[in-house]
Amino acid sequence: MSKSTPHKSALKEKDGIEQPESIGRESVAQIIQSRKNQPSAEELISGILKGDKTALSRAITLVESTNPKHLEKANQVIQACLPYANNSVRLGITGVPGVGKSTFIEAFGKFLTSNGKKVAVLAVDPSSTISHGSILGDKTRMEELVKDENAYIRPSASGETLGGVARKTRETIILCEACGFDSIVIETVGVGQSETAVHSMVDFFLLLKISGAGDELQGIKRGIMEMADAIVINKADGDNIKKANFAKVEFNRALHLFPAKSSGWQPKVVTASAITHDGISNVWEMISEYLNLTKENNYFNERRQDQNQHWLLETINEQLKTNFFNHPEIKSLLETNKKAVQNNEISPFAAASILLEKYFKP
Amino acid sequence: MSKSTPHKSALKEKDGIEQPESIGRESVAQIIQSRKNQPSAEELISGILKGDKTALSRAITLVESTNPKHLEKANQVIQACLPYANNSVRLGITGVPGVGKSTFIEAFGKFLTSNGKKVAVLAVDPSSTISHGSILGDKTRMEELVKDENAYIRPSASGETLGGVARKTRETIILCEACGFDSIVIETVGVGQSETAVHSMVDFFLLLKISGAGDELQGIKRGIMEMADAIVINKADGDNIKKANFAKVEFNRALHLFPAKSSGWQPKVVTASAITHDGISNVWEMISEYLNLTKENNYFNERRQDQNQHWLLETINEQLKTNFFNHPEIKSLLETNKKAVQNNEISPFAAASILLEKYFKP
Repeated sequence: MSKSTPHKSALKEKDGIEQPESIGRESVAQIIQSRKNQPSAEELISGILKGDKTALSRAITLVESTNPKHLEKANQVIQACLPYANNSVRLGITGVPGVGKSTFIEAFGKFLTSNGKKVAVLAVDPSSTISHGSILGDKTRMEELVKDENAYIRPSASGETLGGVARKTRETIILCEACGFDSIVIETVGVGQSETAVHSMVDFFLLLKISGAGDELQGIKRGIMEMADAIVINKADGDNIKKANFAKVEFNRALHLFPAKSSGWQPKVVTASAITHDGISNVWEMISEYLNLTKENNYFNERRQDQNQHWLLETINEQLKTNFFNHPEIKSLLETNKKAVQNNEISPFAAASILLEKYFKP
Repeated sequence: MSKSTPHKSALKEKDGIEQPESIGRESVAQIIQSRKNQPSAEELISGILKGDKTALSRAITLVESTNPKHLEKANQVIQACLPYANNSVRLGITGVPGVGKSTFIEAFGKFLTSNGKKVAVLAVDPSSTISHGSILGDKTRMEELVKDENAYIRPSASGETLGGVARKTRETIILCEACGFDSIVIETVGVGQSETAVHSMVDFFLLLKISGAGDELQGIKRGIMEMADAIVINKADGDNIKKANFAKVEFNRALHLFPAKSSGWQPKVVTASAITHDGISNVWEMISEYLNLTKENNYFNERRQDQNQHWLLETINEQLKTNFFNHPEIKSLLETNKKAVQNNEISPFAAASILLEKYFKP
């Protein structure tokens, strides 16, 4: 509110314009200020399509907003951007903390921009609302990339549910693509459910590992290794090179035990160093090889189609659950029944029947 | 109906009893016949608790029935059996066709019964409704075990959804346990979603493999290897022994790349032969070791509790979806929106909003 008092406005030069008496100076300043803060959907759309990063940031803020008014406007912008989206490669990058994701993404991102690519880096971290820190929050961790005019870095969307975060990230991808970014990098911290969500929105999923770490540091959620299209053994420099090469052999052997992927792609293991930049270009060459293969056999397009259908159904499922579990009567009945199941007084299925009966036939 | 005509009834000896005039002979025969086919819930319960396999079979048939009247009676029986259930070990066994599941289960089951155990073998195969064949349908595949009075073999429950099949299997486990079976073996064919469902209802999950097969035969759904508490290299006999031992080393190496399980158990690889019976006792020793560990650290009980809560929520989620997607108006609207998403005319999230709006605010 204090922002709207005239003397604080950055738009004082409008003072000279004659105003109808019914509109106070303060109101005018307020309106101007609010217009300044909230460009129209049309302004945002044209800005994004021109490649304007400020318009992009504002549109993403709209997408991330929980205000219902913003939601409508956000949908309008997304709708208009859709025909200009899709023309990109979407990369998921995961790895446990300490594996060097930020430095790797910086080195990899700089490699891409120096090869004429436009890179957007997003993050999915549903835990950030709990930990009050987002994995990309500290932008200074990517000092070089942040200053690069062909790069755009957006910290983690916050949200209470993974579904909410995923939705915002998916829509942010569309906006970034419409803004001309042809390489979308989505970072996720390798400790939770978010990897599966990210895997469902990218073309290529890359798992970062380091060699010579104990089992604990290597500990990655079950199933993530199987989702990976490639494993990059990071920090393959100095004394680590030998260990990294050994790890490469080990992981390659492990990957071969998994069955062939429906993409026709055999997951690869490469070594890289974000410090010496060794192997960084190999990572891109490998991704290019993957893109050639999957565009050739049409897996690339089919997968994107499948992902869209997946998100349609996933959003519905999540909303159905939210509606059910937030129903006041169900909430208390659920607690009672959970306890009864725990005490072996009722089978889980009989308990479910009671709850569903209550919900559908109140 | 034709079954109820007097001359076809097996209960002709009741003819001598004087009947009130208002009740016709045919009705009486019908009632008697129907009573014969449908023992009361009380009869079933007392039969099961006495260890009567015929009562058990009839109760399972009730559980598997889709008739709403049967459902109520089935729930009554399950409810009464619940306090007598739970006292068992539940084993999930999976492997692709050709890996020798039936012969392994027969050899393993005979080993258990000869050691004083009572073994129930169930199967989960949601595909059986499509293929019109159930994996245990051909009971002669377990000739020895079928004749064993301490064994009970029940072919696959059929059902249209995995959720339905899973529910029936879960409830069948309760009935078998109340009937005194202390070793429940649940077989699943290693090609679909059913492994995850079975994994959510057992204490120990065993993956059968054979050595020296090509990658295709080894091809098991992604993630199954990570669920396994043990891998048994089957058919380790004759010329295969060397290859089996080599495979054991390979799989052991692969398993060590996965992070530690929350059970505190490090998955093991053993070799076995259903023909020579070599290694069969090792499998049981390994399972005993697992039971000692997880009962000691309380993981065993915690997991069963978690599984119950899981099935409570899972059943609710499935029913919510069924209700939504079977809604006539939603059905047609969904098709339209799926196409719009496919043609990139609308984002998956905007499409979901339209459908949900229609469902909740018709």
